[in-house]
Amino acid sequence: MLLPSDLQSALEVAGVFFAALSGALSAVRKRLDLFGVLVLAWVTGLGGGILRDVLIGAVPPVGIADPALVLTVLVAGFATSLFHLRIERLRRAVVVLDAFALGLFVVVGTLKGLQYDVGWLAALFVGTITGIGGGVVRDVLTGSVPLVLQDRQLYAIPALAGSGAVVVLWETGTLNGWTGMGVVAGVVAFRILSLWRGWVVPEAATGGWPSLWQTRRRKP
Amino acid sequence: MLLPSDLQSALEVAGVFFAALSGALSAVRKRLDLFGVLVLAWVTGLGGGILRDVLIGAVPPVGIADPALVLTVLVAGFATSLFHLRIERLRRAVVVLDAFALGLFVVVGTLKGLQYDVGWLAALFVGTITGIGGGVVRDVLTGSVPLVLQDRQLYAIPALAGSGAVVVLWETGTLNGWTGMGVVAGVVAFRILSLWRGWVVPEAATGGWPSLWQTRRRKP
Amino acid sequence: MLLPSDLQSALEVAGVFFAALSGALSAVRKRLDLFGVLVLAWVTGLGGGILRDVLIGAVPPVGIADPALVLTVLVAGFATSLFHLRIERLRRAVVVLDAFALGLFVVVGTLKGLQYDVGWLAALFVGTITGIGGGVVRDVLTGSVPLVLQDRQLYAIPALAGSGAVVVLWETGTLNGWTGMGVVAGVVAFRILSLWRGWVVPEAATGGWPSLWQTRRRKP
Repeated sequence: MLLPSDLQSALEVAGVFFAALSGALSAVRKRLDLFGVLVLAWVTGLGGGILRDVLIGAVPPVGIADPALVLTVLVAGFATSLFHLRIERLRRAVVVLDAFALGLFVVVGTLKGLQYDVGWLAALFVGTITGIGGGVVRDVLTGSVPLVLQDRQLYAIPALAGSGAVVVLWETGTLNGWTGMGVVAGVVAFRILSLWRGWVVPEAATGGWPSLWQTRRRKP
Repeated sequence: MLLPSDLQSALEVAGVFFAALSGALSAVRKRLDLFGVLVLAWVTGLGGGILRDVLIGAVPPVGIADPALVLTVLVAGFATSLFHLRIERLRRAVVVLDAFALGLFVVVGTLKGLQYDVGWLAALFVGTITGIGGGVVRDVLTGSVPLVLQDRQLYAIPALAGSGAVVVLWETGTLNGWTGMGVVAGVVAFRILSLWRGWVVPEAATGGWPSLWQTRRRKP
Repeated sequence: MLLPSDLQSALEVAGVFFAALSGALSAVRKRLDLFGVLVLAWVTGLGGGILRDVLIGAVPPVGIADPALVLTVLVAGFATSLFHLRIERLRRAVVVLDAFALGLFVVVGTLKGLQYDVGWLAALFVGTITGIGGGVVRDVLTGSVPLVLQDRQLYAIPALAGSGAVVVLWETGTLNGWTGMGVVAGVVAFRILSLWRGWVVPEAATGGWPSLWQTRRRKP
């Protein structure tokens, strides 16, 4: 057992809420109707977990079957459509909360893969997909190329690192509440630090990738 | 048992045919090639059911395994590519038939979820997804933001209402051929009435949603 | 058993490598970042197989669980981001290798469907989806209408023909290493011949489909 299950549930609800908030905000900016806002809150908050559950055979996915999680995205969606102007002003806070959602999703998702005994590689994939899949589906539904594929931010790399850490802890029998929370904290710190310091993924076409990231050039 | 199974099959085939017709028409308008028309007929007619079957673990999905259903979408696709000019002129009829497809899909889809014992909430989701999922996949494949997220028409709300009604009838043991057909009729009536009266979903960003729908303003 | 399993694995790895190469090239052209290149290599090389495995219930899909296959797409992705200029110059070779990938995917995919006992029609679908699904997901993620739906090239028809041939060989008990390789060769030849001779799928809207393909008109 990674965490006392009440704590694990509370953390998952928090992650879903913040991710759903960011999905709903992007729907409001794209001028979707109210139903569109609720759907985007749903896919951004729960889409990564739905992909994970389909890939590991855990059907029906919790994203359509768990009332607490579905209620969470509905609350986030309605709140956004009512208070989006105020939430926009909290943009900096939303970015931080979004980093928390990433860390929580990655740890919870990798762990679920390992519990379903899919092997370390598939667990690594589904952990990462739990973290970034919701945003990808959100972008595809709103007709954009997924941000995570093109904006050069470090989003997937903290996810992969966190997922890998969970796999290593699991395989060495050292995964417990404290180490699990440590991985969450590490992913959050990595993500926020990369934003703050402007670390980016290299463009593929420059051939510059042996230095895996580099500081974004400031304009002179 | 909801309906005599022959009747249930006949209704499903009818729903698939009308949905496939609308998918094929949109492919012709986008100037896809003949294969593209057949694929769009297939995803629009059967894509919602394929998503449903994957989400409830009913594999292989009927949308790739049932010869009668696959033949139905092929006939709709070829017919559209031959007679699309004539079908375009029947646009009003197509809208009505499309409403029938929605009602049939929602009832059949919710029922299948309940039969697979996925719980009421997941059944509600897969019923709605059966109804509107095909159109969403069609729009994503043709590079559009799904209509159902942005055009403010009442499409998902009748679907959710119908799916909820099936869940209530099932839980209270009162689901049978007559009540099931009643739900289909209710969804169709709700959908057509909303088109006729111009009811729309509020824009999310106006904050006007406490009145859940409002009459579309006529230009002066 | 279709093929000695070592040979079958080697062929699958080759198919995945060439498909991943073409996916990574399209990511470089779209100026995605390095992570985007790796993801596009992955979805193009393994996405068709992942869809197949989800549709037949073979979870977790090999595309996230098999280290050899995942390593193959990573190598293709990194190689493309380092050497894309040189690979672009080999465009003609890439087209031929891509045709090999199509043939291999179709035969391996149809066979896996038949081994999972999903019926001939579902096997036909998953064989074709294994062949063309990766390219469809690649195009959707990069915001394009899938090429296979609109460019009128014969891509899906060789796939369907190959998949149908495998089904017939399986049902008649004549599927073995030699006939299986024969189908691969037939798909490759059909695909390359269609490119060379300029055969195209008719536009749906011209109503000209009773002649299933026609020579592309040369400009005068």
